[in-house]
Amino acid sequence: MSSRTVIRGGLVVTASDEIHADVLIEDGRVAALAATGTPAAEAFTAERVMDASGKYVIPGGVDGHTHMEMPFGGTYAADTFETGTRAAAWGGTTTIVDFAIQGVGHSLRSGLDAWHAKAEGNCAIDYAFHMIVSDVNDKTLKEMDLLVEEGVTSFKQFMAYPGVFYSDDGQILRAMQRAAENGGLIMMHAENGIAIDVLVEQALARGETDPRFHGEVRKALLEAEATHRAIRLAQVAGAPLYVVHVSATEAVAELTRARDEGLPVFGETCPQYLFLSTDNLAEPDFEGAKYVCSTPLRPKEHQAALWRGLRTNDLQVVSTDHCPFCFTGQKELGRGDFSKIPNGMPGVENRMDLLHQAVVDGHISRRRWIEIACATPARMFGLYPKKGTIAPGADADIVVYDPHAEQVISAETHHMNVDYSAYEGRRITGRVESVLSRGEPVVTEREYTGRKGHGVYTPRATCQYLN
Amino acid sequence: MSSRTVIRGGLVVTASDEIHADVLIEDGRVAALAATGTPAAEAFTAERVMDASGKYVIPGGVDGHTHMEMPFGGTYAADTFETGTRAAAWGGTTTIVDFAIQGVGHSLRSGLDAWHAKAEGNCAIDYAFHMIVSDVNDKTLKEMDLLVEEGVTSFKQFMAYPGVFYSDDGQILRAMQRAAENGGLIMMHAENGIAIDVLVEQALARGETDPRFHGEVRKALLEAEATHRAIRLAQVAGAPLYVVHVSATEAVAELTRARDEGLPVFGETCPQYLFLSTDNLAEPDFEGAKYVCSTPLRPKEHQAALWRGLRTNDLQVVSTDHCPFCFTGQKELGRGDFSKIPNGMPGVENRMDLLHQAVVDGHISRRRWIEIACATPARMFGLYPKKGTIAPGADADIVVYDPHAEQVISAETHHMNVDYSAYEGRRITGRVESVLSRGEPVVTEREYTGRKGHGVYTPRATCQYLN
Amino acid sequence: MSSRTVIRGGLVVTASDEIHADVLIEDGRVAALAATGTPAAEAFTAERVMDASGKYVIPGGVDGHTHMEMPFGGTYAADTFETGTRAAAWGGTTTIVDFAIQGVGHSLRSGLDAWHAKAEGNCAIDYAFHMIVSDVNDKTLKEMDLLVEEGVTSFKQFMAYPGVFYSDDGQILRAMQRAAENGGLIMMHAENGIAIDVLVEQALARGETDPRFHGEVRKALLEAEATHRAIRLAQVAGAPLYVVHVSATEAVAELTRARDEGLPVFGETCPQYLFLSTDNLAEPDFEGAKYVCSTPLRPKEHQAALWRGLRTNDLQVVSTDHCPFCFTGQKELGRGDFSKIPNGMPGVENRMDLLHQAVVDGHISRRRWIEIACATPARMFGLYPKKGTIAPGADADIVVYDPHAEQVISAETHHMNVDYSAYEGRRITGRVESVLSRGEPVVTEREYTGRKGHGVYTPRATCQYLN
Amino acid sequence: MSSRTVIRGGLVVTASDEIHADVLIEDGRVAALAATGTPAAEAFTAERVMDASGKYVIPGGVDGHTHMEMPFGGTYAADTFETGTRAAAWGGTTTIVDFAIQGVGHSLRSGLDAWHAKAEGNCAIDYAFHMIVSDVNDKTLKEMDLLVEEGVTSFKQFMAYPGVFYSDDGQILRAMQRAAENGGLIMMHAENGIAIDVLVEQALARGETDPRFHGEVRKALLEAEATHRAIRLAQVAGAPLYVVHVSATEAVAELTRARDEGLPVFGETCPQYLFLSTDNLAEPDFEGAKYVCSTPLRPKEHQAALWRGLRTNDLQVVSTDHCPFCFTGQKELGRGDFSKIPNGMPGVENRMDLLHQAVVDGHISRRRWIEIACATPARMFGLYPKKGTIAPGADADIVVYDPHAEQVISAETHHMNVDYSAYEGRRITGRVESVLSRGEPVVTEREYTGRKGHGVYTPRATCQYLN
Repeated sequence: MSSRTVIRGGLVVTASDEIHADVLIEDGRVAALAATGTPAAEAFTAERVMDASGKYVIPGGVDGHTHMEMPFGGTYAADTFETGTRAAAWGGTTTIVDFAIQGVGHSLRSGLDAWHAKAEGNCAIDYAFHMIVSDVNDKTLKEMDLLVEEGVTSFKQFMAYPGVFYSDDGQILRAMQRAAENGGLIMMHAENGIAIDVLVEQALARGETDPRFHGEVRKALLEAEATHRAIRLAQVAGAPLYVVHVSATEAVAELTRARDEGLPVFGETCPQYLFLSTDNLAEPDFEGAKYVCSTPLRPKEHQAALWRGLRTNDLQVVSTDHCPFCFTGQKELGRGDFSKIPNGMPGVENRMDLLHQAVVDGHISRRRWIEIACATPARMFGLYPKKGTIAPGADADIVVYDPHAEQVISAETHHMNVDYSAYEGRRITGRVESVLSRGEPVVTEREYTGRKGHGVYTPRATCQYLN
Repeated sequence: MSSRTVIRGGLVVTASDEIHADVLIEDGRVAALAATGTPAAEAFTAERVMDASGKYVIPGGVDGHTHMEMPFGGTYAADTFETGTRAAAWGGTTTIVDFAIQGVGHSLRSGLDAWHAKAEGNCAIDYAFHMIVSDVNDKTLKEMDLLVEEGVTSFKQFMAYPGVFYSDDGQILRAMQRAAENGGLIMMHAENGIAIDVLVEQALARGETDPRFHGEVRKALLEAEATHRAIRLAQVAGAPLYVVHVSATEAVAELTRARDEGLPVFGETCPQYLFLSTDNLAEPDFEGAKYVCSTPLRPKEHQAALWRGLRTNDLQVVSTDHCPFCFTGQKELGRGDFSKIPNGMPGVENRMDLLHQAVVDGHISRRRWIEIACATPARMFGLYPKKGTIAPGADADIVVYDPHAEQVISAETHHMNVDYSAYEGRRITGRVESVLSRGEPVVTEREYTGRKGHGVYTPRATCQYLN
Repeated sequence: MSSRTVIRGGLVVTASDEIHADVLIEDGRVAALAATGTPAAEAFTAERVMDASGKYVIPGGVDGHTHMEMPFGGTYAADTFETGTRAAAWGGTTTIVDFAIQGVGHSLRSGLDAWHAKAEGNCAIDYAFHMIVSDVNDKTLKEMDLLVEEGVTSFKQFMAYPGVFYSDDGQILRAMQRAAENGGLIMMHAENGIAIDVLVEQALARGETDPRFHGEVRKALLEAEATHRAIRLAQVAGAPLYVVHVSATEAVAELTRARDEGLPVFGETCPQYLFLSTDNLAEPDFEGAKYVCSTPLRPKEHQAALWRGLRTNDLQVVSTDHCPFCFTGQKELGRGDFSKIPNGMPGVENRMDLLHQAVVDGHISRRRWIEIACATPARMFGLYPKKGTIAPGADADIVVYDPHAEQVISAETHHMNVDYSAYEGRRITGRVESVLSRGEPVVTEREYTGRKGHGVYTPRATCQYLN
Repeated sequence: MSSRTVIRGGLVVTASDEIHADVLIEDGRVAALAATGTPAAEAFTAERVMDASGKYVIPGGVDGHTHMEMPFGGTYAADTFETGTRAAAWGGTTTIVDFAIQGVGHSLRSGLDAWHAKAEGNCAIDYAFHMIVSDVNDKTLKEMDLLVEEGVTSFKQFMAYPGVFYSDDGQILRAMQRAAENGGLIMMHAENGIAIDVLVEQALARGETDPRFHGEVRKALLEAEATHRAIRLAQVAGAPLYVVHVSATEAVAELTRARDEGLPVFGETCPQYLFLSTDNLAEPDFEGAKYVCSTPLRPKEHQAALWRGLRTNDLQVVSTDHCPFCFTGQKELGRGDFSKIPNGMPGVENRMDLLHQAVVDGHISRRRWIEIACATPARMFGLYPKKGTIAPGADADIVVYDPHAEQVISAETHHMNVDYSAYEGRRITGRVESVLSRGEPVVTEREYTGRKGHGVYTPRATCQYLN
């Protein structure tokens, strides 16, 4: 039996087009688009008709950077795959790419299996995996080939966190060389962790224990340094590079320079760097801990460089790095020692809205909104055109978005499993109204109609951004 | 009566998507796209069915820079709007934006009227106009507002050609200020013509009269200088800037710098700069004259910078600057004095093919091909989404392109009204098979089925690239 | 008869050395230096002994940019060669290079003769001439060769002041080409005067007539643009370039870029740009007019870039551009129309002290003070090692400088023939105590002992900076 | 008893002056300079008169980078302090700064003591020490303060050679922080040794064992990367930085960028990078091993960037990195495995001559020759004005240099204790004729008149280059 849905009368916005079109869905995929009001459109018939008049019809968001249930510093990120993907759907995101973790001394396989086990049967929306490589050795390098073949086509390494996820430059070079051969994409956490750890130790020795010192020791110059280093290592290896959570003007400058040289180097930023700052880290009564993540928030002045980079495509993607820890009981672990605050912030539910606000504020165009939040992450991570666009043949992951609705972000009303919002009280113009995942209604006119287990694992092709 | 066409089974390639879809055309516009083989696609019915299996279905090309019948140095560009637009169609281009010229001492209006008279009723495909402003004064500035309102939304100025089209920096600044207010886009021929004229005079005095000296006196540094100057004047005026026919590495570097600074500065290059070089200008027996255009061809080494710029979006558009003069009787005017060779080259028919060859050669991706040749010029010049894409609601300007056919470019077989080809003997993989203009077949399986007068004047909105 | 002077016990500071030495002068030249207290020093005998214990013994300043008695806008700079050179001596400067002016339609020769007539017999210190070339033509170009031969080895052109001193890019290129052949140095006033005149006219039309608008219309970007243009023209000509009175961060950046490319490009700034700002131009009651000069004063933030440039040798020289106009009767010509304010400021007496203050403030080192104020201008303009250093064989142009004395700059006490000081009330640490010109005491322990006519014309070799 | 020498009639060339002067030496120091032929000069009397007519009289060279008797890979550099300093004197160098080495697990003190023991009583010319810090820890950091106090004011760290001299970024940061406090100068061997070791292992695994692969695996990009990293770490620490043996265009670019930003960053290159290339490394029959040093020789194209840097002061010093190993028995250790070839080349005797050849060839001026080879190294390492100039009060370390003599460099005739010359057969214009060290003749008209033990340890002040 064929199930058909038609979405009528909306403005379909993709990364490249803005058209008044009706969208016909058959069997979970976009079957056809027709100009609204034409005989072709009128010929569409369907069991379910959604009225999108006055609304945008946009591809579901693709969040390329989440950490559900991630272990960190003796605790776990508060969102499970169940709660996290439900919250994502509420926020208009229909695909996440989460990070499976290789433990030091273990295989990639065992790490990946563990993450499959966490996610399987629990997700409201589709999901895929990157692999965090903590231990590069000959065996790991061979496993990388296998993972690429089975749809895990990107590998994250850390220049930060010595003793935990840290890879040295030789390990990074080896992984990049392998990626250059097998089509994998190296994703880099670019901070000079070795130098930062010295500064952390010195700060604590001086009695600088408050959360705001987290921002001071993790210096912008040390993000820029690591970014440059990763770029040169990738250049030596002949590999592309994707730098995660870029936050500093100086780091953007390194990406810009690399792109001016024609190198296949890409950069991601996150809403927290675009909308928050060290002012938040300095909030009194340990409230700053809510905003502790790495790379850290930067002084406000850095935001302009990020917006510039997003406009000129020196930054290509906005992901969330969603990794929530409750203030009570989790963030509090770092009272008296900022280095013990679990690193991470909630955000998977807020990204599409915050970026729409950026459209309203004039930072980016409507099409660029969809590009950086849906289309480019899908291409970057081998999910396109299944995900990230509304085109015949694509998965019917679609959001009906009301661009005129007003909302106030709050922990009171959000759906993430965390006891605070990083954007508490912020007014946003725009709101998700309904969400389809492969044609199935997950959110229906602001009501949750989805279910745990609807979301399935989605193997990925290799990075298409370079085609 | 509604006329309907359906194009079945091709790979629809747009600036953002590559999808296997059937395209339904109603009344000259794209009515719907449906995934090939779905019930939705099968439901399409039409009077005319085109089979595009194994072919690309792409938007018709938008050539944003042509000079049909242009007066230059006492002669006229050899292609009329009739012959030129027919040749364009043969080459897969379905819209041209030509340049109306203001004579010094005359109004914009009279120049525009003259060009309307030349074009009207003669074109095989749709056309629009930019306005060359040769004489900035208070009256001209006011006329600019009127022209923007009636769809002539871009204005070209020349830093070259003193005594002819040349504007001084004050005139440029005034026009830019006006454009900043009325939404117009200033297009700049960026060469320091005052300095170049000194070098021309000196070269001739030294007896350096051959065509190759045209390339030597018009120095890359003087293109770069003017490019930088135009950028700074635009920055002072608060206006966007579009630099035409960028040919030199050093000029690309100035555009790159401007974009790194976040300025709304855009650059166009042309196939001749990507595929030809000063080696051609140095061809013996005055054959070099065939390649005389301004900016001039550069040494081969410059090509890499242009391809880099096209890949990283420091250059956004490839147009032709089509301005053909026959070798016999026209180019020959400059025997013994390169400065008397009419400046210009044929190319309107070759652009889409040459750029497809660039896809085959790995310089750009398939989507980028469509972007630089169709979508971006349409957006840049206010024709989007009518032109430049295949989407419900767009004009059905569509090319069925055979990516596997082989051809050899030659004056023997081309359709431009000029006695030589700049690419004589060059082998190309890929060929236009059929062309629709607003749904009407202009070329049908390599046969001309169009007609003079089908093409209509198309008023333009203001530049959408900045949205 | 041999006249001998010995200066005992001071710290001799040159561009490269700081030594405790006695200086022996014979017949107007430095005959010998000997380490203080050595037998060699004690062997020095002389008619006149000056005690410099606790003082610096430094080369007399070389001010490479003055305009004595210069005609501008219907009036004349208020200092004659007599008053101006006397004031220079008071301030520790023992050589000036003034600008002879070619009138449009006249020869270089006649301009130079006129300036010789003004200066001859009137100067307290030695002087030389640059030539302002207002009218490049074949005859002028030939005259340039002759002037180089007779010791006028530098030629100033203006990209500002259309209709007065302005040269177009062709004239500039021609002059640069000639200089490349004859060893002359082109000095450039780098502001896009054509564009600025548009902004001036628009500002006045808006009723913006106060002095501060002088600073607003002469935009930093238009200084940077002209600087870049001059650099590229010089590069095309194969000539070195010296940019006068650099005031804007953006212009320094262009010089830096050129030097990074290895081009022989040099930059001069002036004390007014280092110590004053648009805050002064905005002083009420038309007092801002005192600070009207071109290039204009810039916002304070620009000073850091100038100091940086002086430290890293992207700027090589600090001159004064001394061109004083009295507030009463001269500056007042521009009440109600800033464009009528005579452009220029007094400063020839203050340069050495202000730059010593910069040493005290930590901006530059003691040796760099002497380098930018004495040695490099002497080298740049072919006066080295006669002028600009204290070394055996050099002219005994020597200043005994008290680094600990305190003074307050004021029109009450200065010796320039102008009714205000640009630095009124500024406290300075350091003061000239005595000055010798070719061994003759011009200032003796803060008393004027010089005479009109002592100073002689000093023909110059070509630029030695490039050796 | 006072011993007096006078050097008559030469052209005294220092970093800033070129003067015809007689130089009077009293008790080992320059007592006075007098213009040749003046009464003052004629009054000079002395026991010893040297005739320098037609010759240059220059400061003795200061070689800031030598490794006498250095242990490396199980063998020792072939020159002892005795043979090496004698050869230095033959080549016109009168001061060396050699590197004492801290062994891992040992104190700075014990390393320094060991080097004192090697040098004391053995040197023909004066010497000083830098300290190689191989093991940064709290104790070492404290020792740094003491060493600065006793005249060892610079500390070298290695980003290369993991497991030997290598410091990680945290150790580097700590040492830099300490230097920022105690006035020490960090000298950096800037190559990413961790990444290079991976490439070495891979090359050997591919059977690439010849000396030329040494050049291929130590990639220019990895020198540039490390250079940039060191710069940013120094910026974080607030410390100046001196990068040793810069060889790659890309590394110069990083220094240029840092200096454009106003950072106190300095660069040294060596004659081998200016005059030799990978062509030498590729010499057959294992002859390439003679040229194995790190950073490695680069392709010829890199030389232009080094000369440019020396001209524009982005590079400040030319040292030798003299570290000779005989071809027979030492370099041969690496037959079949380039990684086992002892790293280092002879050169202490050739530097002044090769740089004079650069003057003859037009790369640098005569004054710049003295600046980069004498004055700046003396300033950089706290030896100025004792060393590096000819001025009253300075040590009488003076070379009479014949600028017209011709010589051919050869192992047959050189005085270094090594069985080959890196410049075998190269013709040079210019030759050392006589050399004084603190007034004592070490070389007298091409005859060795010096003695072991004349040279004394010279404690150093802190870096004066920043004053």
